[in-house]
Amino acid sequence: MNDLSGKIAPGPFHHVGTRPVRPDGVEKVTGKAVFGPDFSVAGMLYGAILRSPHAHARIRGIDTRKAAALPGVKAVVTGADFPDLESLTVSAGESSGDIIHISRTCMAHEKVLYDGHAVAAVAATSARIAQEALALIAVDYEVLPHVLDPEAAMRDDAPLLHDGIFTKGIEPAPERPSNVPMKVALARGDAAAALAGAAAVAAGRYTTEFVHQGYIEPHVCVASWNADGQAQIWASSQGHFSIRALTASVLGMAQADIRVHPLEIGGGFGGKTGIYLEPVAMLLSRKAGRPVRLAMSRGEVFRATGPAPGAVIELRIGAAADGTLVGAEIDFIYNAGAYPGNTAHSGLICALGHYRLANARITGWEVLTNRPAVKAYRAPGAPQVNFAVESALDDLATQLGIDPIALRLKNAVIPGDAQPTGVPFGQIGYVECLEAARAHPHWSAPLGPNQGRGLAGGLWRSHGGPSTGEVGLAEDGTGLVAAGSPDIGGSRASMAIMAAETLGVPYEQVRVTIADTHSIGYSMVTGGSRTTFATGKAVIEAAEQVIATLRQRAAAMWNVAADTVEWRDGTAIRADGERLSIGQIAAKAAFSGGPIAASVGLNAAGYLPGFAVHICDVEVDPETGHVGVLRYTAVQDVGRAIHPAYVEGQLQGGAAQGIGWALNEAYAYDAQGRMENAGFLDYRMPVASDLPMIDTVMVEVPNPAHPYGVKGVGEAPIVPPLAAVANAVRAATGKRLPDLPLTPDRVHAAVHG
Amino acid sequence: MNDLSGKIAPGPFHHVGTRPVRPDGVEKVTGKAVFGPDFSVAGMLYGAILRSPHAHARIRGIDTRKAAALPGVKAVVTGADFPDLESLTVSAGESSGDIIHISRTCMAHEKVLYDGHAVAAVAATSARIAQEALALIAVDYEVLPHVLDPEAAMRDDAPLLHDGIFTKGIEPAPERPSNVPMKVALARGDAAAALAGAAAVAAGRYTTEFVHQGYIEPHVCVASWNADGQAQIWASSQGHFSIRALTASVLGMAQADIRVHPLEIGGGFGGKTGIYLEPVAMLLSRKAGRPVRLAMSRGEVFRATGPAPGAVIELRIGAAADGTLVGAEIDFIYNAGAYPGNTAHSGLICALGHYRLANARITGWEVLTNRPAVKAYRAPGAPQVNFAVESALDDLATQLGIDPIALRLKNAVIPGDAQPTGVPFGQIGYVECLEAARAHPHWSAPLGPNQGRGLAGGLWRSHGGPSTGEVGLAEDGTGLVAAGSPDIGGSRASMAIMAAETLGVPYEQVRVTIADTHSIGYSMVTGGSRTTFATGKAVIEAAEQVIATLRQRAAAMWNVAADTVEWRDGTAIRADGERLSIGQIAAKAAFSGGPIAASVGLNAAGYLPGFAVHICDVEVDPETGHVGVLRYTAVQDVGRAIHPAYVEGQLQGGAAQGIGWALNEAYAYDAQGRMENAGFLDYRMPVASDLPMIDTVMVEVPNPAHPYGVKGVGEAPIVPPLAAVANAVRAATGKRLPDLPLTPDRVHAAVHG
Repeated sequence: MNDLSGKIAPGPFHHVGTRPVRPDGVEKVTGKAVFGPDFSVAGMLYGAILRSPHAHARIRGIDTRKAAALPGVKAVVTGADFPDLESLTVSAGESSGDIIHISRTCMAHEKVLYDGHAVAAVAATSARIAQEALALIAVDYEVLPHVLDPEAAMRDDAPLLHDGIFTKGIEPAPERPSNVPMKVALARGDAAAALAGAAAVAAGRYTTEFVHQGYIEPHVCVASWNADGQAQIWASSQGHFSIRALTASVLGMAQADIRVHPLEIGGGFGGKTGIYLEPVAMLLSRKAGRPVRLAMSRGEVFRATGPAPGAVIELRIGAAADGTLVGAEIDFIYNAGAYPGNTAHSGLICALGHYRLANARITGWEVLTNRPAVKAYRAPGAPQVNFAVESALDDLATQLGIDPIALRLKNAVIPGDAQPTGVPFGQIGYVECLEAARAHPHWSAPLGPNQGRGLAGGLWRSHGGPSTGEVGLAEDGTGLVAAGSPDIGGSRASMAIMAAETLGVPYEQVRVTIADTHSIGYSMVTGGSRTTFATGKAVIEAAEQVIATLRQRAAAMWNVAADTVEWRDGTAIRADGERLSIGQIAAKAAFSGGPIAASVGLNAAGYLPGFAVHICDVEVDPETGHVGVLRYTAVQDVGRAIHPAYVEGQLQGGAAQGIGWALNEAYAYDAQGRMENAGFLDYRMPVASDLPMIDTVMVEVPNPAHPYGVKGVGEAPIVPPLAAVANAVRAATGKRLPDLPLTPDRVHAAVHG
Repeated sequence: MNDLSGKIAPGPFHHVGTRPVRPDGVEKVTGKAVFGPDFSVAGMLYGAILRSPHAHARIRGIDTRKAAALPGVKAVVTGADFPDLESLTVSAGESSGDIIHISRTCMAHEKVLYDGHAVAAVAATSARIAQEALALIAVDYEVLPHVLDPEAAMRDDAPLLHDGIFTKGIEPAPERPSNVPMKVALARGDAAAALAGAAAVAAGRYTTEFVHQGYIEPHVCVASWNADGQAQIWASSQGHFSIRALTASVLGMAQADIRVHPLEIGGGFGGKTGIYLEPVAMLLSRKAGRPVRLAMSRGEVFRATGPAPGAVIELRIGAAADGTLVGAEIDFIYNAGAYPGNTAHSGLICALGHYRLANARITGWEVLTNRPAVKAYRAPGAPQVNFAVESALDDLATQLGIDPIALRLKNAVIPGDAQPTGVPFGQIGYVECLEAARAHPHWSAPLGPNQGRGLAGGLWRSHGGPSTGEVGLAEDGTGLVAAGSPDIGGSRASMAIMAAETLGVPYEQVRVTIADTHSIGYSMVTGGSRTTFATGKAVIEAAEQVIATLRQRAAAMWNVAADTVEWRDGTAIRADGERLSIGQIAAKAAFSGGPIAASVGLNAAGYLPGFAVHICDVEVDPETGHVGVLRYTAVQDVGRAIHPAYVEGQLQGGAAQGIGWALNEAYAYDAQGRMENAGFLDYRMPVASDLPMIDTVMVEVPNPAHPYGVKGVGEAPIVPPLAAVANAVRAATGKRLPDLPLTPDRVHAAVHG
């Protein structure tokens, strides 16, 4: 099944493409689903974390004696309780980095690097006592100069966050440490010459701000670490296997000694692929001898988890008179916050990946500042550069008098074109998306005064990777699927559909469980738009193994050869037409040949990038500068939509988040480097009343490397909105606003400037 | 691996036979292990059950209106809420019976059949309100005559419990219903003629009482049944797959719709193989729309769960002058309580199964009375008949002047002898046990006045059956085993030992999880002395599949053929001696070939019966009739002891329970049929101060059908104690006391009578 040979099921399908009831829907709408804060165990303590009020400071000492003496306090932990670690790059799915940095993100040792950096933690018999205890901890800080702006942080005289970071990717290797962990570069052809000969060149400097994923549920975990070294963690995350691997690395434990149970997750979007609380809760639990729950407030989530990098992008893109792109030069800086995050690579790949372009030079820098370390946020690294590129393409179309879709169609990559990595594209559907956008009524609908329409395209690389899927049968023949990938965007439904389709049974007869780390084989995080593709492949292959077993068992019951038994519509069929249902075979199975179940682990190859084209209509209020989104259409090549309602939800959700990034969202800091808007009242995400219904168009160009044609769909829809909105504002105002977010004050100033 | 061809590992072993720290030991002694009463979920309600105060009554009506109106009460359930069922024999591991009877055991419908029979249940926001609500339920009973004694229940004029039970196993089939569900019989040779020609005949009528398993933890479950039909149950039991199957059958649900999570279990001994609370908690949860916990008190456990049958046994056994057994006639009645329990079959098989005997006739009857329906209790059905047979053998030895061990050795079954079923015995070790007993210093130690020594042998059939085992590797190469059999007697340790032995890694690197019903394939109950054998075979086979994968992955890393790579000591070894550790291979595995894990489901064949020989010394106080146990030695063929400390614990525990059965324990009823001693103060189980340290001798005659030679060990040790104690009392007093328990009043009367 892990082959790429194009044996895609042709259909018609019984379940694939239908919209059955969500298996977790009732639990969630009735409040019974167990999210992190709902979970408790007997004897549990309540933890709390003391956080730095300074953006940059040396910790001269921490006096926890008064806190420890407070009645009800059972444990106090500081950075000194963390084991010393050797610098080592660890990778756990999408979450990778130096293990020392991962440890320090959980709790500062010598220095605090941002407002909100954890410095100590307590566990107590009540949440109130834990908060009281925090107030009794005295931290002796030596406040240091701080830097928030990435360009300032690159200067030689900038405050230095780390002693040991030397820029990678430059020759000769630097002798002095800096705030610049990495330079990345990509070049083909002669971009400078091509630009010099271009008929039109669009140039600009664009900026985007730190923005947060804004998942509804804050980070929570419960940890129980026994005196014999074995531990259990209950947490909501995008990958309980990542929690296991990272926590084991930070604490120097064997992975088998940490069993991680997945709880329901109230949104992640990439921000829940790493760890913040788990090692702290573990250390508190070991000291206290009891389980400990740690839960973040909304303020802690903003101040101390991982937003998306802010960016500065300078670029020049040139085209021939007919719209053919001839050359591009892009320089970008990604502000990664306090620790390196390998943020720049995706920018490199996604900036121009959707266009054929013979001459290009792209240079990216990752820069550290006194902000929380960034984390993946839906298509991490792609929206920022895409915003600049798709804005510039719009400017080129204007300059050349070419329709924006026609310009993009002229240059859009097609199957066989080289990716930025050099590998040719497979069965991608960018052209199909552009054509669908052009054919959509939205594209030709009339506009009123102060209104404008913008369009942008974009891609996300997607991913495959390792997953395990199990399929088994209960004694009554109903089906059980276990997966190791948390269900964030509907994987229980999609796994049930794919398993039911493969087995030939009703959807309601297949129930899907997200199994803990010790009950199923390794599965990478739910992220990278990989789960329906990769975990789906594992589940389908396991279902096929179950069918093979069912045919053998039926053959044994009939006393015929297994290869004379067909499997169709959930039924074994003998050569003479005699049938045995899945229930009839299962009823006899355990006590004859043994229980029927199959486990398949694979490293799913053959994933394909996702392409999206968004159309946005805005109305700009010239009085206030307010930008209202009037109409929005998200077009995407989704491969094949297993459960279309969930796919539409992904397209709508990505668009909504991208619109927030474009119009409203930004981290705001005061002069001391303290975050000023660490809450949903002040950090302004779009709410339902801010947005129109987002229309969706699912273009289906099936992926031949997946039995049902699946491509990743979750991330591409956040790539185009930044430019789609900005292009619409330019159309409405005639002004190119290169700095996000497009807040009323900025728009008002541009309109009246 | 499921072959019986004798490919038993020869040793020496690294782990098998060692006594490492128990993986669940620290959790249990520190109170962190999550047993039923420790478990709660958010929004949970507290349930309580109203129980019949009558031994036998018709329910004319139940008025629950006042209870339902009590503030805080969220649901009330009676028998009318249970679905109508068609009579159907269901089997879920060891627990089988008519589904209507299983349903009625959970809650009475038309009639109550015993004191404590459930008649209604409530769920409320607190346990106090739930109890208050019970007091507001008015049940209109028509009290009926009741019967407690099995011989009385067999009479034509006995109160009839059920209208529809007609004795099976008699010809012609009876036309009238009765309280006798079943007659079983077995005959070979001519027993009457052989007895007529015997040199000595021992005859007697023996009785045993209802006794309870006395597990420390009462039954508890939490159930959550959603509006969409899906449910979760958390329960401590001997088999969460049985809970799933039985609850689904009682409620008419698909098994895939009930996910059952195993909690730690505080003892079961056969009594936790069925269901009592789960369907009630489910119905309360569905009505209330919230999760519901139901927990029994100790009194409820005694009155309303399944003790072991009481018995009446009449027998005659004859021997030649040299001690050769020549013939036997046995008639026994098992008192099964309120519902049929298929109790008699084991009595038939185990009565004389340990001796060669050409002429035998055994007839058994199962009889119903107004007591709770019996359930499996450690070697179910064997101790009662064994008590009579081994008492009679002792009498024969006395009559003939032959040493009791010599008499038994002369007649003991050996490999190749026919079992009562006709199938020849495999590699059994009864002779070895008898010889070990004879060689033990206990057998020849001197005795004082009023002291006596008794000996008895016995067998238990053991079982194999379906189990699933999973073995996987974390990214650091540590090992993860998942099993579907609850760990009652140390299966986490034994699975870890067998997996570590097979993989060639340290014991501490393998952690074992008991997975829920939806995370692993079907596994039969932990019972029948089957788990180390059957689940062990599945785990070993899964470990061997993992080794095969590791060799393939190492071969791929070296670019050599997999069959040139050896696996030894947890290391892949190339032909030239180059090595790759399990950790080195695992670190690369997921992202190259995919996660490494294997799932094996099998129906384990090749189990062998267990044989035990016990020696008991007592001192009888002639003043009071008190019997004190001075010394006790349990000898058993254990096949091969994977973790000897746990095996010794099984031998000691079985002996302790058997001593209680012999000396103290019995259900006591008043004239209205109400249980008078439903609590540990009045139902007198042996405590530590009642018993000497039980000495153990593990005889190892390995089972060739298991890779490490495993035989079941958990049940055989409860078979001989009844007769061993009674024979010791006879030796001390010169009196044969045929009625258990040997309470001081009975012993005093016999000594002075």
